[in-house]
Amino acid sequence: MTVFLQKIKDLDILHYQKEFLAYLNSKNWIHNPKNLYEPIEYILQLGGKRMRPVLTLMGCHIFSDDYKKSLPAALAIEVFHNFTLVHDDIMDDAPLRRGKETVHEKWNLNTGILSGDAMLILAYQYFENYEPVVFQKLAKLFSKTALEVCDGQQLDVDFETRNNVTIPEYINMIRLKTSVLVGAALKMGAIVAETEEKNTDLIYEFGLNLGIAFQLQDDYLDTFGNPETFGKQVGGDIMENKKTFLYLKSLLIASTKDKEKLKSLYSTKLEDNDTKIIEVKNIFTTYKIPEETQSIIKEYTEKAFKTLEIIDISEENKINLKNFGLQLMQREV
Amino acid sequence: MTVFLQKIKDLDILHYQKEFLAYLNSKNWIHNPKNLYEPIEYILQLGGKRMRPVLTLMGCHIFSDDYKKSLPAALAIEVFHNFTLVHDDIMDDAPLRRGKETVHEKWNLNTGILSGDAMLILAYQYFENYEPVVFQKLAKLFSKTALEVCDGQQLDVDFETRNNVTIPEYINMIRLKTSVLVGAALKMGAIVAETEEKNTDLIYEFGLNLGIAFQLQDDYLDTFGNPETFGKQVGGDIMENKKTFLYLKSLLIASTKDKEKLKSLYSTKLEDNDTKIIEVKNIFTTYKIPEETQSIIKEYTEKAFKTLEIIDISEENKINLKNFGLQLMQREV
Repeated sequence: MTVFLQKIKDLDILHYQKEFLAYLNSKNWIHNPKNLYEPIEYILQLGGKRMRPVLTLMGCHIFSDDYKKSLPAALAIEVFHNFTLVHDDIMDDAPLRRGKETVHEKWNLNTGILSGDAMLILAYQYFENYEPVVFQKLAKLFSKTALEVCDGQQLDVDFETRNNVTIPEYINMIRLKTSVLVGAALKMGAIVAETEEKNTDLIYEFGLNLGIAFQLQDDYLDTFGNPETFGKQVGGDIMENKKTFLYLKSLLIASTKDKEKLKSLYSTKLEDNDTKIIEVKNIFTTYKIPEETQSIIKEYTEKAFKTLEIIDISEENKINLKNFGLQLMQREV
Repeated sequence: MTVFLQKIKDLDILHYQKEFLAYLNSKNWIHNPKNLYEPIEYILQLGGKRMRPVLTLMGCHIFSDDYKKSLPAALAIEVFHNFTLVHDDIMDDAPLRRGKETVHEKWNLNTGILSGDAMLILAYQYFENYEPVVFQKLAKLFSKTALEVCDGQQLDVDFETRNNVTIPEYINMIRLKTSVLVGAALKMGAIVAETEEKNTDLIYEFGLNLGIAFQLQDDYLDTFGNPETFGKQVGGDIMENKKTFLYLKSLLIASTKDKEKLKSLYSTKLEDNDTKIIEVKNIFTTYKIPEETQSIIKEYTEKAFKTLEIIDISEENKINLKNFGLQLMQREV
């Protein structure tokens, strides 16, 4: 997920980011054995928008003035997210992350595995800052979410070699792989604020559905985004034959001829992808896939907004959260 | 750690084993996605003596009649231990585990990494069976221990390429890599029994020191064990140039000539190791390394027994625990 976070009045994203970074930097990452902890500092300092910890601070702030008490939970979420990056980069054999060498490239496979393992454990340790009842709620939500992220990663791998993936299966995969963590990030903030369970559940639903919309938007932008402003290479999913919503929806509605053409285009990896990308985009456009994608994004965004109606927060915060969601969905980057 | 567990009156090891296995087998390991959970069931069913979960049941039983309530904590320890086996086997490039294919061999590298990650999370989930205060105590001890095991694993890797490892550094490495988990297994049982903190700390010390003695005994048996009864190939550490206590102690006390000979023998890996093993054993024997090793094993065993003197349990249980320790140390397998 890449997002350009702007200042939103009252729920000041830039302020949360700054607060979180100060907290992150206040930690001393280098312990012995340094070969275990240096890679942890390295990946955590590679940057990124820190969207997940910002959501935790925000999730706390809408229910409590003392949102800073959610910083340890925010750190747990960020360290966990970076753990998934380290292990995923090994599994994807990725040489680069945010333009820098991945951990297993800079060090080696074993360091990538072991430092990743240590990060998963460190994430749990940050919850130790809370008293037992809050600790247990956070750790339970965290374990459930972390296991779901593993499930989602496995489904993503499984789908690579399957030719009968349905759209509901795809939505379920992105829900597990990326969206549950968005929901959990917000909910952890709400748990730390000690609001009632009904509210923590609703803010989770808000984040979950917004996360699904966000990931579908990512699929859309990967193919139809503006190359000038989109962070990654436009057409990357097509080059990688990724069975995104765009591809799966086309297989459902295209003519037999176009369906076969699309399947054939997705059966090889090429050196020069320019023609492939144009041909695939042509099929997508013929069947109004961009419009179909925008329509399902809208569906999940509205589902997210619906939960805001019944949540027990001020009208102002509802508007703020809605604006935050709208901004995420209107981004071109 | 391989140990032949025998019936000990009252603290009936075989009974705990049976109890634990029944609990393990009552769990349904296969969830979707099955490519993630099948490897977990596979490694957990490969067998082994289940020493760590047995210690948890025992650690609970000496403080409480209702020792069965420690079964979820025992399962957490066993699942964690198997997680370390899955990831360590990748790092060691090991083809076999208990005579069967390792997970990354039977499936692939990515499955080994991801199923391992899921096991670490599952281990935390078993603590959810306990109420918040006990939950937090267990999870805190577990995180601390798990991170120490990572530290120990990293030190073990670091030592492979270092030529100036001291004996205290070596003892610290085995303490972290293997012994803290023995201490934690016992302590978790005591925590579940809700005995006072003084006792949980003492039973931890007992396990920790017994664990160090046990690992040193493992080093001893690897070179001087009876090939008829020792589970692994005698001389394995020598073949692998492993800098165990035996090697490090020799470097401290041998003549310059023998020191150089030993270093030279440990600088290559050979096809035929028979001569190498004989020559190394000759040096060890010349400098009474077997006796030196037995002496340090005795030191740690007695340190373990000393903690029993002040622990608040019946004399009968003290004798039982002591007998258990003596049996571990007198094993030839």
